[in-house]
Amino acid sequence: MTSLTLVIGNKNYSSWSLRPWLAMKQMGLEFTEIRIPLYQVGSSAQVRRYSPSGKVPVLLHDEITVWDSLAILEYLIEQFPALPWLPLAAKPRAIARSICAEMHSSFANLRQHMPMNIRAYVPGGEVPASVQADITRITTIWHECREAFGMGGNFLFGAFTIVDAMYAPVVTRFITYGVQLDSVCSTYAEAILALPAMQNWIAAAKHETETIESYTNPPN
Amino acid sequence: MTSLTLVIGNKNYSSWSLRPWLAMKQMGLEFTEIRIPLYQVGSSAQVRRYSPSGKVPVLLHDEITVWDSLAILEYLIEQFPALPWLPLAAKPRAIARSICAEMHSSFANLRQHMPMNIRAYVPGGEVPASVQADITRITTIWHECREAFGMGGNFLFGAFTIVDAMYAPVVTRFITYGVQLDSVCSTYAEAILALPAMQNWIAAAKHETETIESYTNPPN
Repeated sequence: MTSLTLVIGNKNYSSWSLRPWLAMKQMGLEFTEIRIPLYQVGSSAQVRRYSPSGKVPVLLHDEITVWDSLAILEYLIEQFPALPWLPLAAKPRAIARSICAEMHSSFANLRQHMPMNIRAYVPGGEVPASVQADITRITTIWHECREAFGMGGNFLFGAFTIVDAMYAPVVTRFITYGVQLDSVCSTYAEAILALPAMQNWIAAAKHETETIESYTNPPN
Repeated sequence: MTSLTLVIGNKNYSSWSLRPWLAMKQMGLEFTEIRIPLYQVGSSAQVRRYSPSGKVPVLLHDEITVWDSLAILEYLIEQFPALPWLPLAAKPRAIARSICAEMHSSFANLRQHMPMNIRAYVPGGEVPASVQADITRITTIWHECREAFGMGGNFLFGAFTIVDAMYAPVVTRFITYGVQLDSVCSTYAEAILALPAMQNWIAAAKHETETIESYTNPPN
């Protein structure tokens, strides 16, 4: 009997944790969750008990440890190949991987200026051009995927895939910071928010009581 | 007959381009190379002809486009599964993926402070603590891999894998900026530099004549 454990950070703040958590829930995998509130006294040592990089998320699968959200997802794709993690056809599959990797390496300005903070609602702040460029690229990706591959479902490639998990934290950021979306993008954002697993994560985030200062007052 | 084309940036500067280029050469894949010198008049439009994200590298495989270095590698792993891209056993394979993904999402301080610039040799600069922390994490990874998985070869997992391709640009950075390495790490760095494909890339970088100001004078 195989055992899966996902070590995550605060649900309010840890965008990297949300990604594999949501993908695993959507694929119906049973797993134990270990939540470690970050930036508290002792957090770092607790994370290091599981994670060689000192960061969450970390997946523990029997005696195997995998860290970093994208590595966790690629690992799970290989371990559970029958689950619909990605589109099967080569072309959309290649584009799906490209878009996941782009999220993984890019959008530093958006991350820094609009950190995930599900409990907060602070619309109307000034949006620097570098952040707007990130927003424009993301909404362009959403449009192109919905138009080329979205038929037959509400998600970027129709049915839910790991690409949606990779972009789910952005959906919460757009709400927190009041980013205006056109109808294609807001319909997509609503589909993400309506997922029972996403509702579950958001409710848990709202019940958390820890505050991380650097996420609550991001630099302008 | 299948056709592979890799679109890359300047060999002197484009660390992201070096990764899939080196991996593909090491795996013996035949491919056409299109080099676009970056940050020149018209560069951006040229890149956008191939790349939806506006960035290099981009792989063109028949009618399929894949962008972002890590997505290109995962795509190639699926397309050419008989090639030794990664260790085969589940545990080292999981760790290899974790380390690739960690390089892909992390080490921003090292990237910014010590951009790849193969032609340059500027040792002795001050190393901020945040950059030193990145260097320490990378050399820790090298030590742990060499000790746990390196037997039977000169690379992180013994024989060459995509992990070595992901860390090859760091090897050139350590030389350019005169980062001192212990014997385990300098022996590993020498193994990377001794690869004929790496020698070929470095020689081409030294013959390039374009200069990118922001890479040549990084912020302190």
